[in-house]
Amino acid sequence: MKTTLYLEDLAPGQVYGGAGRTKVTAESIVAFARDFDPQDFHLGEERARRTAFKGLAASGWHTAALTMRLTVDSDFTPAGGILGAGVEQLSWPRPVRPGDELRVQTEVLEVRPSKSKPDQGIAKVRVTTLNQKNETVQEFVAVLVVPKRPR
Amino acid sequence: MKTTLYLEDLAPGQVYGGAGRTKVTAESIVAFARDFDPQDFHLGEERARRTAFKGLAASGWHTAALTMRLTVDSDFTPAGGILGAGVEQLSWPRPVRPGDELRVQTEVLEVRPSKSKPDQGIAKVRVTTLNQKNETVQEFVAVLVVPKRPR
Repeated sequence: MKTTLYLEDLAPGQVYGGAGRTKVTAESIVAFARDFDPQDFHLGEERARRTAFKGLAASGWHTAALTMRLTVDSDFTPAGGILGAGVEQLSWPRPVRPGDELRVQTEVLEVRPSKSKPDQGIAKVRVTTLNQKNETVQEFVAVLVVPKRPR
Repeated sequence: MKTTLYLEDLAPGQVYGGAGRTKVTAESIVAFARDFDPQDFHLGEERARRTAFKGLAASGWHTAALTMRLTVDSDFTPAGGILGAGVEQLSWPRPVRPGDELRVQTEVLEVRPSKSKPDQGIAKVRVTTLNQKNETVQEFVAVLVVPKRPR
Protein backbone atom coordinates (compact mmCIF):
# COMPACT_ATOMS: atom_id res chain seq x y z
CA MET A 1 0.00 0.00 0.00
CA LYS A 2 1.53 3.27 -1.10
CA THR A 3 1.25 6.50 0.86
CA THR A 4 -0.09 9.56 -0.91
CA LEU A 5 2.35 12.41 -0.45
CA TYR A 6 1.12 15.97 -0.12
CA LEU A 7 3.28 19.08 -0.20
CA GLU A 8 3.39 19.10 3.62
CA ASP A 9 4.92 15.60 3.60
CA LEU A 10 7.92 16.62 1.53
CA ALA A 11 11.09 18.09 3.02
CA PRO A 12 14.55 18.81 1.65
CA GLY A 13 16.93 15.91 2.20
CA GLN A 14 14.32 13.15 1.90
CA VAL A 15 15.35 10.39 -0.48
CA TYR A 16 12.71 8.18 -2.11
CA GLY A 17 13.45 5.00 -4.03
CA GLY A 18 12.21 1.48 -3.98
CA ALA A 19 13.13 -2.00 -5.03
CA GLY A 20 12.37 -1.42 -8.72
CA ARG A 21 15.03 -2.46 -11.22
CA THR A 22 14.91 -2.44 -15.01
CA LYS A 23 17.15 -4.70 -17.07
CA VAL A 24 18.01 -3.01 -20.37
CA THR A 25 18.36 -5.43 -23.28
CA ALA A 26 19.93 -4.88 -26.70
CA GLU A 27 16.52 -5.61 -28.22
CA SER A 28 14.79 -2.89 -26.20
CA ILE A 29 17.56 -0.37 -27.02
CA VAL A 30 17.16 -1.03 -30.74
CA ALA A 31 13.33 -1.07 -30.61
CA PHE A 32 13.18 2.32 -28.90
CA ALA A 33 15.77 3.75 -31.30
CA ARG A 34 13.86 2.55 -34.37
CA ASP A 35 10.82 4.48 -33.18
CA PHE A 36 12.42 7.57 -31.71
CA ASP A 37 16.18 7.92 -32.22
CA PRO A 38 17.36 6.04 -35.32
CA GLN A 39 21.09 6.76 -35.17
CA ASP A 40 23.90 4.24 -35.69
CA PHE A 41 25.05 4.14 -32.06
CA HIS A 42 21.55 3.03 -30.94
CA LEU A 43 20.56 0.70 -33.81
CA GLY A 44 22.81 -2.32 -33.48
CA GLU A 45 26.09 -3.54 -31.99
CA GLU A 46 27.96 -3.70 -35.29
CA ARG A 47 26.92 -0.25 -36.54
CA ALA A 48 27.54 1.25 -33.12
CA ARG A 49 31.12 -0.04 -32.96
CA ARG A 50 32.24 2.51 -35.57
CA THR A 51 30.74 5.48 -33.65
CA ALA A 52 31.85 7.65 -30.74
CA PHE A 53 30.14 5.16 -28.39
CA LYS A 54 32.30 2.20 -29.60
CA GLY A 55 29.34 -0.12 -29.11
CA LEU A 56 25.58 -0.19 -28.66
CA ALA A 57 24.24 2.43 -26.23
CA ALA A 58 20.69 3.38 -25.28
CA SER A 59 19.23 6.66 -26.48
CA GLY A 60 19.31 9.21 -23.68
CA TRP A 61 15.56 9.62 -24.21
CA HIS A 62 15.13 5.88 -23.69
CA THR A 63 16.96 6.20 -20.37
CA ALA A 64 14.71 9.16 -19.52
CA ALA A 65 11.57 7.15 -20.34
CA LEU A 66 12.77 4.11 -18.31
CA THR A 67 13.56 6.47 -15.45
CA MET A 68 10.02 7.82 -15.51
CA ARG A 69 8.65 4.30 -15.31
CA LEU A 70 10.90 3.43 -12.37
CA THR A 71 9.90 6.66 -10.63
CA VAL A 72 6.16 6.05 -11.13
CA ASP A 73 6.64 2.55 -9.66
CA SER A 74 8.76 3.82 -6.73
CA ASP A 75 7.67 4.99 -3.29
CA PHE A 76 7.76 8.62 -4.45
CA THR A 77 4.00 9.03 -4.84
CA PRO A 78 2.81 12.64 -4.77
CA ALA A 79 -0.96 13.22 -4.67
CA GLY A 80 -2.28 13.81 -8.17
CA GLY A 81 0.66 12.02 -9.78
CA ILE A 82 4.14 13.07 -10.85
CA LEU A 83 3.39 16.27 -12.68
CA GLY A 84 6.46 17.95 -14.08
CA ALA A 85 6.42 21.64 -14.96
CA GLY A 86 9.94 21.31 -16.30
CA VAL A 87 13.39 19.85 -15.95
CA GLU A 88 16.72 21.52 -15.28
CA GLN A 89 20.20 20.24 -16.08
CA LEU A 90 19.48 16.84 -17.57
CA SER A 91 22.76 15.01 -18.14
CA TRP A 92 23.90 11.57 -19.23
CA PRO A 93 27.35 11.17 -17.64
CA ARG A 94 27.86 7.65 -19.06
CA PRO A 95 26.13 5.45 -21.61
CA VAL A 96 23.55 2.79 -20.79
CA ARG A 97 24.70 -0.53 -22.29
CA PRO A 98 22.88 -3.80 -23.03
CA GLY A 99 22.66 -5.82 -19.81
CA ASP A 100 22.67 -2.78 -17.52
CA GLU A 101 20.22 -2.88 -14.64
CA LEU A 102 18.84 0.53 -13.73
CA ARG A 103 17.27 1.92 -10.58
CA VAL A 104 16.31 5.44 -9.56
CA GLN A 105 16.32 7.61 -6.50
CA THR A 106 14.50 10.88 -5.97
CA GLU A 107 15.93 13.42 -3.52
CA VAL A 108 13.83 16.36 -2.38
CA LEU A 109 15.85 19.58 -2.78
CA GLU A 110 13.34 22.35 -2.18
CA VAL A 111 9.65 22.71 -1.23
CA ARG A 112 7.63 25.90 -1.44
CA PRO A 113 3.94 26.84 -1.48
CA SER A 114 2.58 28.50 -4.60
CA LYS A 115 1.99 32.24 -4.30
CA SER A 116 -0.91 32.28 -6.74
CA LYS A 117 -2.55 28.91 -6.01
CA PRO A 118 -3.27 28.33 -2.30
CA ASP A 119 -4.00 24.60 -2.72
CA GLN A 120 -0.66 23.58 -4.22
CA GLY A 121 3.07 24.15 -4.26
CA ILE A 122 6.31 23.39 -6.06
CA ALA A 123 8.83 20.70 -5.16
CA LYS A 124 12.26 20.54 -6.73
CA VAL A 125 13.64 17.01 -6.77
CA ARG A 126 16.85 15.49 -8.09
CA VAL A 127 16.17 12.26 -9.97
CA THR A 128 19.26 10.06 -10.30
CA THR A 129 19.41 6.91 -12.42
CA LEU A 130 22.08 4.40 -11.42
CA ASN A 131 23.37 1.23 -13.05
CA GLN A 132 24.25 -2.05 -11.35
CA LYS A 133 27.72 -0.68 -10.50
CA ASN A 134 26.11 2.31 -8.73
CA GLU A 135 27.36 4.63 -11.45
CA THR A 136 25.12 7.53 -12.41
CA VAL A 137 23.88 7.18 -15.99
CA GLN A 138 21.41 10.07 -15.86
CA GLU A 139 20.63 12.95 -13.54
CA PHE A 140 18.24 15.86 -13.61
CA VAL A 141 16.36 18.26 -11.38
CA ALA A 142 12.59 18.26 -11.90
CA VAL A 143 10.21 21.01 -10.92
CA LEU A 144 6.98 19.32 -9.80
CA VAL A 145 3.52 20.62 -8.99
CA VAL A 146 2.29 19.01 -5.74
CA PRO A 147 -1.12 19.54 -4.08
CA LYS A 148 -1.41 20.57 -0.45
CA ARG A 149 -3.30 18.26 1.93
CA PRO A 150 -7.04 18.98 1.69
CA ARG A 151 -8.45 20.56 4.89
CA MET B 1 20.62 14.24 -50.01
CA LYS B 2 21.48 15.64 -46.63
CA THR B 3 24.53 17.79 -45.94
CA THR B 4 26.89 16.71 -43.20
CA LEU B 5 27.40 19.61 -40.81
CA TYR B 6 30.75 20.13 -39.12
CA LEU B 7 31.44 22.52 -36.27
CA GLU B 8 32.67 25.12 -38.78
CA ASP B 9 29.30 25.04 -40.57
CA LEU B 10 27.35 26.04 -37.48
CA ALA B 11 26.80 29.66 -36.45
CA PRO B 12 24.57 31.35 -33.87
CA GLY B 13 21.25 32.39 -35.35
CA GLN B 14 20.96 29.55 -37.85
CA VAL B 15 17.59 27.79 -37.70
CA TYR B 16 17.24 24.23 -38.95
CA GLY B 17 13.94 22.46 -39.50
CA GLY B 18 12.36 20.50 -42.27
CA ALA B 19 9.04 19.32 -43.55
CA GLY B 20 8.67 16.56 -40.95
CA ARG B 21 5.39 16.38 -39.04
CA THR B 22 4.19 13.81 -36.54
CA LYS B 23 0.52 13.27 -35.86
CA VAL B 24 -0.03 12.22 -32.26
CA THR B 25 -2.89 9.76 -31.76
CA ALA B 26 -4.71 8.77 -28.58
CA GLU B 27 -3.50 5.20 -29.20
CA SER B 28 0.17 6.24 -29.36
CA ILE B 29 -0.19 8.38 -26.21
CA VAL B 30 -1.65 5.45 -24.28
CA ALA B 31 0.85 2.91 -25.69
CA PHE B 32 3.84 5.04 -24.66
CA ALA B 33 2.31 5.68 -21.24
CA ARG B 34 1.70 1.97 -20.59
CA ASP B 35 5.39 1.29 -21.17
CA PHE B 36 6.96 4.32 -19.58
CA ASP B 37 4.59 6.67 -17.74
CA PRO B 38 1.49 4.83 -16.47
CA GLN B 39 -0.39 7.71 -14.84
CA ASP B 40 -4.11 8.46 -15.20
CA PHE B 41 -3.68 11.61 -17.32
CA HIS B 42 -1.77 9.60 -19.98
CA LEU B 43 -3.70 6.29 -19.92
CA GLY B 44 -7.11 7.10 -21.37
CA GLU B 45 -9.57 9.91 -22.03
CA GLU B 46 -12.01 8.97 -19.29
CA ARG B 47 -9.41 8.51 -16.53
CA ALA B 48 -7.64 11.68 -17.65
CA ARG B 49 -10.78 13.82 -17.38
CA ARG B 50 -10.64 13.67 -13.57
CA THR B 51 -7.00 14.85 -13.42
CA ALA B 52 -5.26 18.24 -13.57
CA PHE B 53 -5.04 17.81 -17.37
CA LYS B 54 -8.86 17.55 -17.79
CA GLY B 55 -8.37 15.10 -20.64
CA LEU B 56 -5.82 12.83 -22.25
CA ALA B 57 -2.35 14.35 -22.64
CA ALA B 58 0.92 12.86 -23.86
CA SER B 59 3.69 12.12 -21.38
CA GLY B 60 6.33 14.83 -21.56
CA TRP B 61 8.86 12.06 -22.21
CA HIS B 62 6.77 10.92 -25.17
CA THR B 63 6.93 14.46 -26.57
CA ALA B 64 10.69 14.44 -25.95
CA ALA B 65 11.07 11.12 -27.79
CA LEU B 66 8.93 12.29 -30.74
CA THR B 67 10.99 15.48 -30.83
CA MET B 68 14.19 13.46 -31.10
CA ARG B 69 12.74 11.52 -34.03
CA LEU B 70 11.69 14.72 -35.82
CA THR B 71 15.13 16.21 -35.19
CA VAL B 72 16.97 13.15 -36.53
CA ASP B 73 14.77 13.32 -39.65
CA SER B 74 15.26 17.10 -40.07
CA ASP B 75 17.94 18.99 -41.99
CA PHE B 76 19.96 19.44 -38.78
CA THR B 77 22.53 16.75 -39.51
CA PRO B 78 25.79 17.14 -37.60
CA ALA B 79 28.66 14.84 -38.56
CA GLY B 80 28.74 11.82 -36.28
CA GLY B 81 25.07 12.21 -35.36
CA ILE B 82 23.17 14.19 -32.78
CA LEU B 83 25.21 13.50 -29.70
CA GLY B 84 23.89 15.21 -26.61
CA ALA B 85 26.12 15.78 -23.61
CA GLY B 86 23.16 17.20 -21.74
CA VAL B 87 20.04 19.31 -21.76
CA GLU B 88 19.26 22.55 -19.98
CA GLN B 89 15.85 24.00 -19.10
CA LEU B 90 13.51 21.43 -20.58
CA SER B 91 9.94 22.70 -20.29
CA TRP B 92 6.48 21.65 -21.44
CA PRO B 93 4.51 24.92 -21.60
CA ARG B 94 1.30 23.22 -22.78
CA PRO B 95 0.05 19.64 -23.10
CA VAL B 96 0.20 17.57 -26.29
CA ARG B 97 -3.32 16.30 -27.08
CA PRO B 98 -4.62 13.54 -29.35
CA GLY B 99 -4.77 14.86 -32.91
CA ASP B 100 -1.92 17.34 -32.44
CA GLU B 101 0.58 17.55 -35.26
CA LEU B 102 4.12 18.29 -34.11
CA ARG B 103 7.14 19.75 -35.84
CA VAL B 104 10.52 20.88 -34.54
CA GLN B 105 13.03 23.60 -35.16
CA THR B 106 16.61 23.77 -33.99
CA GLU B 107 18.24 27.16 -33.47
CA VAL B 108 22.00 27.43 -33.01
CA LEU B 109 22.75 29.56 -29.94
CA GLU B 110 26.48 29.13 -29.39
CA VAL B 111 29.42 27.36 -31.03
CA ARG B 112 32.84 26.87 -29.47
CA PRO B 113 35.84 24.63 -30.08
CA SER B 114 36.81 22.21 -27.33
CA LYS B 115 39.84 23.19 -25.27
CA SER B 116 40.92 19.63 -24.59
CA LYS B 117 39.92 17.89 -27.86
CA PRO B 118 41.27 19.65 -30.98
CA ASP B 119 39.06 17.68 -33.40
CA GLN B 120 35.69 18.67 -31.93
CA GLY B 121 33.64 21.35 -30.26
CA ILE B 122 30.40 22.12 -28.48
CA ALA B 123 27.25 23.58 -30.00
CA LYS B 124 24.39 24.82 -27.88
CA VAL B 125 21.08 24.62 -29.70
CA ARG B 126 17.51 25.44 -28.72
CA VAL B 127 15.11 22.71 -29.82
CA THR B 128 11.50 23.89 -29.99
CA THR B 129 8.53 21.59 -30.60
CA LEU B 130 5.44 23.26 -32.02
CA ASN B 131 1.89 22.04 -32.56
CA GLN B 132 -0.35 22.72 -35.57
CA LYS B 133 -1.36 26.10 -34.06
CA ASN B 134 2.31 27.10 -33.84
CA GLU B 135 2.15 26.91 -30.06
CA THR B 136 5.25 25.69 -28.26
CA VAL B 137 4.62 22.37 -26.51
CA GLN B 138 8.21 21.68 -25.52
CA GLU B 139 11.47 23.60 -25.45
CA PHE B 140 14.98 22.86 -24.29
CA VAL B 141 18.59 23.83 -24.86
CA ALA B 142 20.86 20.93 -25.80
CA VAL B 143 24.61 20.82 -25.46
CA LEU B 144 25.93 18.82 -28.40
CA VAL B 145 29.35 17.42 -29.26
CA VAL B 146 30.14 18.20 -32.93
CA PRO B 147 33.28 17.14 -34.84
CA LYS B 148 35.42 19.65 -36.72
CA ARG B 149 35.88 19.19 -40.46
CA PRO B 150 38.72 16.71 -41.08
CA ARG B 151 41.80 18.35 -42.62
